[in-house]
Amino acid sequence: MTVTKSNLTLQQLSVSDIARLVKGELIGEGGLLVSGFSGIKEAKQNELTFLSNPKYEPLLRDTQAGVILVPRQISCPGKTLIRVDNPSLSFTQVVNYVLKGAPDYKPQGIHPTAVIASGAKLAPGVAIGAHTIIEAGAVIASGCVIYANCYVGHDTDLGENCLIYPQVVLREKVSLGRRVIIHSGSVIGSDGYGYVTVDGKHMKIPQVGSVLIEDDVEIGANVTIDRARFDKTIIGEGTKIDNLVQIGHNVIIGKHCLIIAQTGIAGSTKIGDHVILAAQAGIAGHLEIGDGAVVGAKSGVNHSIKPGEQVFGYPAQPIKDAFRTNAHIHRLDKYVELIKDLKKRIEVLEKQ
Amino acid sequence: MTVTKSNLTLQQLSVSDIARLVKGELIGEGGLLVSGFSGIKEAKQNELTFLSNPKYEPLLRDTQAGVILVPRQISCPGKTLIRVDNPSLSFTQVVNYVLKGAPDYKPQGIHPTAVIASGAKLAPGVAIGAHTIIEAGAVIASGCVIYANCYVGHDTDLGENCLIYPQVVLREKVSLGRRVIIHSGSVIGSDGYGYVTVDGKHMKIPQVGSVLIEDDVEIGANVTIDRARFDKTIIGEGTKIDNLVQIGHNVIIGKHCLIIAQTGIAGSTKIGDHVILAAQAGIAGHLEIGDGAVVGAKSGVNHSIKPGEQVFGYPAQPIKDAFRTNAHIHRLDKYVELIKDLKKRIEVLEKQ
Amino acid sequence: MTVTKSNLTLQQLSVSDIARLVKGELIGEGGLLVSGFSGIKEAKQNELTFLSNPKYEPLLRDTQAGVILVPRQISCPGKTLIRVDNPSLSFTQVVNYVLKGAPDYKPQGIHPTAVIASGAKLAPGVAIGAHTIIEAGAVIASGCVIYANCYVGHDTDLGENCLIYPQVVLREKVSLGRRVIIHSGSVIGSDGYGYVTVDGKHMKIPQVGSVLIEDDVEIGANVTIDRARFDKTIIGEGTKIDNLVQIGHNVIIGKHCLIIAQTGIAGSTKIGDHVILAAQAGIAGHLEIGDGAVVGAKSGVNHSIKPGEQVFGYPAQPIKDAFRTNAHIHRLDKYVELIKDLKKRIEVLEKQ
Repeated sequence: MTVTKSNLTLQQLSVSDIARLVKGELIGEGGLLVSGFSGIKEAKQNELTFLSNPKYEPLLRDTQAGVILVPRQISCPGKTLIRVDNPSLSFTQVVNYVLKGAPDYKPQGIHPTAVIASGAKLAPGVAIGAHTIIEAGAVIASGCVIYANCYVGHDTDLGENCLIYPQVVLREKVSLGRRVIIHSGSVIGSDGYGYVTVDGKHMKIPQVGSVLIEDDVEIGANVTIDRARFDKTIIGEGTKIDNLVQIGHNVIIGKHCLIIAQTGIAGSTKIGDHVILAAQAGIAGHLEIGDGAVVGAKSGVNHSIKPGEQVFGYPAQPIKDAFRTNAHIHRLDKYVELIKDLKKRIEVLEKQ
Repeated sequence: MTVTKSNLTLQQLSVSDIARLVKGELIGEGGLLVSGFSGIKEAKQNELTFLSNPKYEPLLRDTQAGVILVPRQISCPGKTLIRVDNPSLSFTQVVNYVLKGAPDYKPQGIHPTAVIASGAKLAPGVAIGAHTIIEAGAVIASGCVIYANCYVGHDTDLGENCLIYPQVVLREKVSLGRRVIIHSGSVIGSDGYGYVTVDGKHMKIPQVGSVLIEDDVEIGANVTIDRARFDKTIIGEGTKIDNLVQIGHNVIIGKHCLIIAQTGIAGSTKIGDHVILAAQAGIAGHLEIGDGAVVGAKSGVNHSIKPGEQVFGYPAQPIKDAFRTNAHIHRLDKYVELIKDLKKRIEVLEKQ
Repeated sequence: MTVTKSNLTLQQLSVSDIARLVKGELIGEGGLLVSGFSGIKEAKQNELTFLSNPKYEPLLRDTQAGVILVPRQISCPGKTLIRVDNPSLSFTQVVNYVLKGAPDYKPQGIHPTAVIASGAKLAPGVAIGAHTIIEAGAVIASGCVIYANCYVGHDTDLGENCLIYPQVVLREKVSLGRRVIIHSGSVIGSDGYGYVTVDGKHMKIPQVGSVLIEDDVEIGANVTIDRARFDKTIIGEGTKIDNLVQIGHNVIIGKHCLIIAQTGIAGSTKIGDHVILAAQAGIAGHLEIGDGAVVGAKSGVNHSIKPGEQVFGYPAQPIKDAFRTNAHIHRLDKYVELIKDLKKRIEVLEKQ
């Protein structure tokens, strides 16, 4: 059960290794080498997954996973199981164990080419990469790691243990909570898109608000999050944003949402907690998307969505209606033939 | 009526303050504190807006705005008005007044870590941030501010008073007019996507043209504008481009257009003046979009559009047709039931 | 036939110049000045193109090109032809000749402000621009040019003659083949978007795989390519990727594909060779797109596609079905009127 630091391909843990690590009861063979982790639906034959809630037992029978962490009472003949008290907690434990063994490429200390304004406050031990710029008034809490070529604007503050990859721009007055991760090329706090048209010319409305990113948010690469006009654009705790997402000014996103790649959210829209916006979705401005709502990939939402509602298509409909609509659309050929046939038969009847 | 520079939240002006500033006649109470500006449709209770043209008076009755700048002759019982000779001019005056008071985070002077090639020409007083690179042959006119970590390529020139945020790339031979604003992460002058396929392999066609950005253009964050193959990609005066927009090689965009987030325009398409392309729209290559045309959000345009035409959907249709089509689509269920019912009734008639 | 280096607008070659350069037989006038190159369908009156395969002769009659390189036996009255043994090879020769004459703005040598870790290996003669960072373990082969403000992570290696424009991020353990071109703002090797949801919170799955970019790939501006979870995200030889494209973790793209702007490919999908994904397309995860398949612009693909299949729409259908479906949709108005008419006629019949 060695994990070398010299190589990105982690040495594999065996099923027995994992059972020992989580102090679980192994049901099945312990020899299989596990090389990855996944959710129960996507897990492959050499991967570890977990089942927390006994009501999803059918997923257990269907999973391809090589080994599954399950609650104490669960059985599933033919599957390799590790029974534990709290499967999700044990899963976290294994992932963290392996992560600890992953090679660490982070910068350490403050690189001599970094430009730290005299008015910036850095906690002891923070790491700042080469050529990164920290402006006056910025506050960087302990445990933060900021890679090379980043820009941290005036009066911007980072909570503990943030991880900022190369070439991220945090404009002035942006606030990050703790453990926020931002990937390369993302821009936080650019001006919102706001103009008033006077005699056919677009006059810029000042965008002097800010952006608040709460704890445990992760933001992908080349994302853009605009600052509010006067208030705050907010990304709620634990929300995960994929690459190339656009978030307009004054948008408020709740906690633990998933915003998948290339989605756009227009200004002043409010997204609830635990919302999922699938890839390339578009949400118009000034709407409310309720807690737990799900918007399908490439859907376009131009009206508010109730909590828990699942919508799809453009304009987005409840998912069942959308699927029925799509089915009809794909059968239009038949319907058109049927109408033409009916027309002929009516003509025959009319002649009689 | 003090506006401190130390805080991004502007101190509020009262309605009386504003009336005094624009030398207008106040109709209503002067005590309300105004904290923002908006168009007349979106303005909130503590915001200032304006009405220029008396023919839009119904908007005045419906607006939520706390105070409205109006032409001298206008009345609207129950609304707080400030009567002036030229409402849009007065509005501009107030916005500019407040902007002047906003905190100023811009770099000043030339940072010692900036790399300025000996062959670059900088007007006296321009500001260049830390680690920004200005290549030989670049010309930076007076009043320009270039933030940190930017790249200004060979023979690229910037007109007076341009504002370039951190980590913008202006490749070689790009031309900016006056007062151009470019937000972080945008790339101007990357190679156009041009290949000729020879025996199944894609051979690169040289992209040795350039990009011309005219006066008063604003470009959002992480936008990409490709250089022309041999000529110029052009963005016309006063056009405003939102985040994550893609503009292909040899595209020509007219004056005072609005190009909203995540829209893409393929190579060699010509966009007229005062055109609006809503978010996530796609315009195919080699088309002409007439002056004043409007393309709806997420629409896909694969044919040229006449001046003033409003289109929607994919493939895009005139907006009325598109709405009617959508209405039919959402009623397909009913139509299908109706057809089935008609079929049965015909069968009954046929048996008689 | 002079091509000056001082100006991006290449001096034009005459048709005779080109005939002499490729040692071809000129049929027609030699005086026309040629100012560009294009494919046979798009070429303009002052451009050079070529026809390789005699079976496409009808294209020759229709082309606007000023002069066409053709196989020895070909005639086409009224067109200016240059007959050669291998037209595509000769075309390449002319393009390369002109490219050689284009002004060269590339950095030379290693800029003193570049930060090269002691553990990085650079072949003699590589060029590294100002403020670029090369981390320990990186390997840069001969002929590579890396512009200013780039980041090359630990253990990342570049094959011979790669060209990396300003502000590109190559995270750790990324591998580039030979002659790879990457445009500004692109991020290669950001973490894949992978979480397991435990009690409503999204727990990060480690993304410790890498990215492999094969020979002759070109990647546009502000593209994002995520590293694999444990294996490799792969971009096959000769594939050309346009601006603002998103490629998820563990995606495998084959050889000589064209991936047009703003397209997104979700995790673990496998794309064959010679595939074309038009602009703003979206491909769901865990699919297979067969060799030579074509996906239309803005299409959404949620099932695997067979080799050579052409699909369009969302959900994507075979292109013929999609066009027929679209035609029906645009005629819905007529169909609805017809149904209503039939209903009335049936009612008349029923009363009789």
